[in-house]
Amino acid sequence: MTGKFISLEGGEGSGKSTAIVCIQRWLDAENIDYIMTREPGGTVLAEEIRGLILASRDEAVDDMTELLLMFAARAQHMSQKIRPALEQGLWVISDRFIDSSFVYQGRARGGDTEKLNTLTEWVVGDNKPDATLLLDVPVDIGMQRVADRKNADRLDKESIEFHEKVRQGFLEQADLEPERIKVIDASQPLEQVSAQIVTQLDALKTAWKRGV
Amino acid sequence: MTGKFISLEGGEGSGKSTAIVCIQRWLDAENIDYIMTREPGGTVLAEEIRGLILASRDEAVDDMTELLLMFAARAQHMSQKIRPALEQGLWVISDRFIDSSFVYQGRARGGDTEKLNTLTEWVVGDNKPDATLLLDVPVDIGMQRVADRKNADRLDKESIEFHEKVRQGFLEQADLEPERIKVIDASQPLEQVSAQIVTQLDALKTAWKRGV
Ligand SMILES: Nc1ncnc2c1ncn2[C@@H]1O[C@H](COP(=O)(O)OP(=O)(O)OP(=O)(O)O)[C@@H](O)[C@H]1O
Ligand SMILES: Nc1ncnc2c1ncn2[C@@H]1O[C@H](COP(=O)(O)OP(=O)(O)OP(=O)(O)O)[C@@H](O)[C@H]1O
Ligand SMILES: [Mg+2]
Ligand SMILES: [Mg+2]
Repeated sequence: MTGKFISLEGGEGSGKSTAIVCIQRWLDAENIDYIMTREPGGTVLAEEIRGLILASRDEAVDDMTELLLMFAARAQHMSQKIRPALEQGLWVISDRFIDSSFVYQGRARGGDTEKLNTLTEWVVGDNKPDATLLLDVPVDIGMQRVADRKNADRLDKESIEFHEKVRQGFLEQADLEPERIKVIDASQPLEQVSAQIVTQLDALKTAWKRGV
Repeated sequence: MTGKFISLEGGEGSGKSTAIVCIQRWLDAENIDYIMTREPGGTVLAEEIRGLILASRDEAVDDMTELLLMFAARAQHMSQKIRPALEQGLWVISDRFIDSSFVYQGRARGGDTEKLNTLTEWVVGDNKPDATLLLDVPVDIGMQRVADRKNADRLDKESIEFHEKVRQGFLEQADLEPERIKVIDASQPLEQVSAQIVTQLDALKTAWKRGV
C-alpha cells in the first residue's frame, strides 16, 4: 500500500518545525512508519541547491533563477526521496512543499501562476500531498517568535508587508483547496496547537481508512 | 544599437575554447567591444550552479533536476550578464548555449523537446543567438584531443556511443536552423579551422551591416 504524504505550511515562526515533533509523537503512537523531510532540501543535492538559494551574495538573484532552482531541488527531492518512500508504504512528512512556492514565488512576489502550474505538473505530477496542515499566525506574532534567531538568512530580511502577503497567500491557497489544506490556528499556545494537529491527524487517518 | 550574440557549440574536444581565441583576435582587429562568457556559468551564481551540475556525488541526479539546474544557471546568465551587455551594444560570445541543452538533455538523453522549448521561451525569449558556430569533428578525434585532460568530470565519463549521439544531435540542430547555425569542419588543423571561422565572421558582419 502506498504511504501518505503530509506537508506543513505557513510563514516564518508559524511553528512548522515545532509541529513536526508533535506529528512524530502521533505517528510513533500509531505505529506508522514514516520519514521526515523539508523543502527546499531533503537530499544531498537538494540541500546544496537550498544553500545556493539562501546564500547572501553581491549578485542579484533573478526571479526566474530562484523559481527554477526551487523546482530543481524539488525534482531531486521527489525522485530520490519522496516517491521511493511512498512506494515503500512509508508516510512522508515535509516541512514546506509546493504551497510555499505558490505563495513565495507566486502570490507574494507577483510571479506567474501558469509557470508554477507547469513546473508542478512536470515535477510533482500525481504526488501532490494527501493533506497539508497550514499553520496560520498573525505576522507580528510569527516575527516575534523568530526575532532572536541568529542566522537571519536572505528571506528573513523581507519587510512586514511581504510577510502579510505571505500569510494572505497561504489562506488563499487554503480557500482554493479546502479538502487538502487544513488551517490550524497557530497563534494559540503550543499545547492547543498540538491538540488541533492531533485532531486533524485522527480525522485524516479515519477518512483514509474508509478509503476517502 | 543592440550588440550581436554569437554562441559556439560542438562536442568535447571539438575546439570551442580554442576558437574563442581566434574570435577574440578578429573582434580586436575590427575594433568591436565584446564580452566572452560560457555556459553553464557566466556569473557568480551561475558558476556555483555549474559546480553542482558537474560535481561527482553518490546520489543519482534526476534528469529533471539537471534540466532545471541548467536553465536556472541560464536564467541568471541571461538576466545578469548577456541581456545587459547586448543592451549596451556589446557583442557577446558564449562558449556553449541553448543548442547544448537541446543536444545533451534532449537528443542524446531522449529528453522531452517540448519542455526544452518551454524553458527556452521563458528564459531566453527573444535573445536567441544571432549566429552559432558549430565545431563539428568525428568523435574519435575529439576524444583524442581531450584524452590527456586531468579533471575528467561526470560528463567526460559517458561512452563513445553517447558522444556519437551528441555529434549527430548538433548536426540535426544545424539542419533545423541553417540560417543561424554555421557548421565548421573542426577536424582540420587549427590554422584552417581559424580561417573558416574568420570567413564566417566576415560574412556575418557584412550581412548584419546590410541589416539582414
Ligand atoms: N504555539 C506556539 N506558541 C509560542 N511559541 C511557539 C509556538 N510554536 C512555535 N513556537 C516557537 O516559535 C519559534 C518558531 O517556531 P518554528 O521554528 O517551529 O517555526 P517555523 O514555522 O518552523 O519557522 P521557519 O519558517 O522560520 O522555519 C520557536 O522558538 C518555537 O519554539
Ligand atoms: N583544430 C585542432 N587541431 C588539433 N588540435 C586542436 C584543434 N582545436 C583544438 N585542439 C586541441 O584540442 C584540445 C581540446 O580543444 P578545446 O579545449 O578548445 O575543446 P572544447 O570544444 O572547448 O572542449 P570542451 O567541450 O571539453 O570544453 C585542446 O588541447 C586544443 O589545443
Ligand atoms: Mg522551521
Ligand atoms: Mg572548452
